[in-house]
Amino acid sequence: MKIVLVETTHPGNIGAVARAMKTMGLHHLVLVKPKYFPSEEANARASGAKDILEAASVVQTLEEAIKDCNLVIGTSARRRSKDWVYLDPKQAINLAADQVGNGRVAFVFGRESSGLSNNELNRCTHLLHIPTNENYSSLNLAMAVQIISYEYQIRNASNRSNSKAGIISDPATSEQMEGFFVHLEQALSDLEFLQRNRETKLMKRLRRFFFRASPNEQELNILRGILSSAQGQKSMRDSKNSPQ
Amino acid sequence: MKIVLVETTHPGNIGAVARAMKTMGLHHLVLVKPKYFPSEEANARASGAKDILEAASVVQTLEEAIKDCNLVIGTSARRRSKDWVYLDPKQAINLAADQVGNGRVAFVFGRESSGLSNNELNRCTHLLHIPTNENYSSLNLAMAVQIISYEYQIRNASNRSNSKAGIISDPATSEQMEGFFVHLEQALSDLEFLQRNRETKLMKRLRRFFFRASPNEQELNILRGILSSAQGQKSMRDSKNSPQ
Repeated sequence: MKIVLVETTHPGNIGAVARAMKTMGLHHLVLVKPKYFPSEEANARASGAKDILEAASVVQTLEEAIKDCNLVIGTSARRRSKDWVYLDPKQAINLAADQVGNGRVAFVFGRESSGLSNNELNRCTHLLHIPTNENYSSLNLAMAVQIISYEYQIRNASNRSNSKAGIISDPATSEQMEGFFVHLEQALSDLEFLQRNRETKLMKRLRRFFFRASPNEQELNILRGILSSAQGQKSMRDSKNSPQ
Repeated sequence: MKIVLVETTHPGNIGAVARAMKTMGLHHLVLVKPKYFPSEEANARASGAKDILEAASVVQTLEEAIKDCNLVIGTSARRRSKDWVYLDPKQAINLAADQVGNGRVAFVFGRESSGLSNNELNRCTHLLHIPTNENYSSLNLAMAVQIISYEYQIRNASNRSNSKAGIISDPATSEQMEGFFVHLEQALSDLEFLQRNRETKLMKRLRRFFFRASPNEQELNILRGILSSAQGQKSMRDSKNSPQ
């Protein structure tokens, strides 16, 4: 399970995140375009967790940070449209724990000022919302990581064995899902299903829908087979059509 | 429910505690002999929670801070003698919530360096231990308060209304799903995608997949629109084809 911080502005927060992670037994930190890193301030706030900072990966895009992940859980301070599935911290950790062995999990945290962009949220398979005071929801970045890490530790510490019923085996990776979405958009365009000016909105809805479904590789192959089949019919029609 | 900080050394931590409390709907802060207070650093770290600092009481002894309380829950990083009852954060909050109306509750947090003294621990009715990494349990003071405040908020939110997290709004009815599956099977048959002898198996897989995704009515309409579009291409091809 990795913690991904996107474009963190304050290096102190990066250090506090490392400390929060380590106190709860998490180690894998990925920084997407941090404003200042490495930094003395980060080291100071990390206290005894400097090893987490030293082992952290720095990448340039969120895509790079999550490309090997099946489960990408993005944090969002406000609730967006209602067809997103929002998890609370415990639900998110339970979902992540059920994945272990089947694939990799990323928890993604956005900028201090503005969180994750819509584009970044669309890369996430699930959204996490930490319940807060309705009148003051300004949770500090490292505090949010602390809460998730705490739930992780609680889950780890408890030796309850949870039923694996209903768990999807071998969910597709982020990269495979993106490949599917490219295919889907192309097929819908070939079918002339995408109306101009509405394609972005429709694709967003379909992305959320298929993320929620969390297909495994085999299911993805079936879906892509159906798309190719529909595209094939279209190109057959065109080739019958065009010579006339 | 009040948060009591005993002899806090770093004013930044006091500010971060105020912010942590306010994000989770807690307001009552008591400071026992803080090293620096009021302080600009505390105000800065409190961000929008300066009102918590302004309303905070400053007292000289723990006794004074807790004299009106029935339930005094002290935090301890290490487990002490085994005749103490240790609560985890959720148990502590549940106990505190059950007291409401019966009396006042204090959560007491000790010094950054050395925690609470044995004398102070003996004033507590219960001890709280936040589970941490055995090899690195150096939880920052404000982080510890954030975790307790988070459990308070979780308990409060679930009391207000059953959490809707993770629930898809208006999932399609069984009837709507069956209508969709009939449509899907017909479309796949029109597309000549269903191979003989394998249609039952494939449709079973697709049913499971779409049940798992649990589309709502709008999403079902989009999916059926795509199917109709693919079928339309097919029938156009056929009608172009058959007169020849």
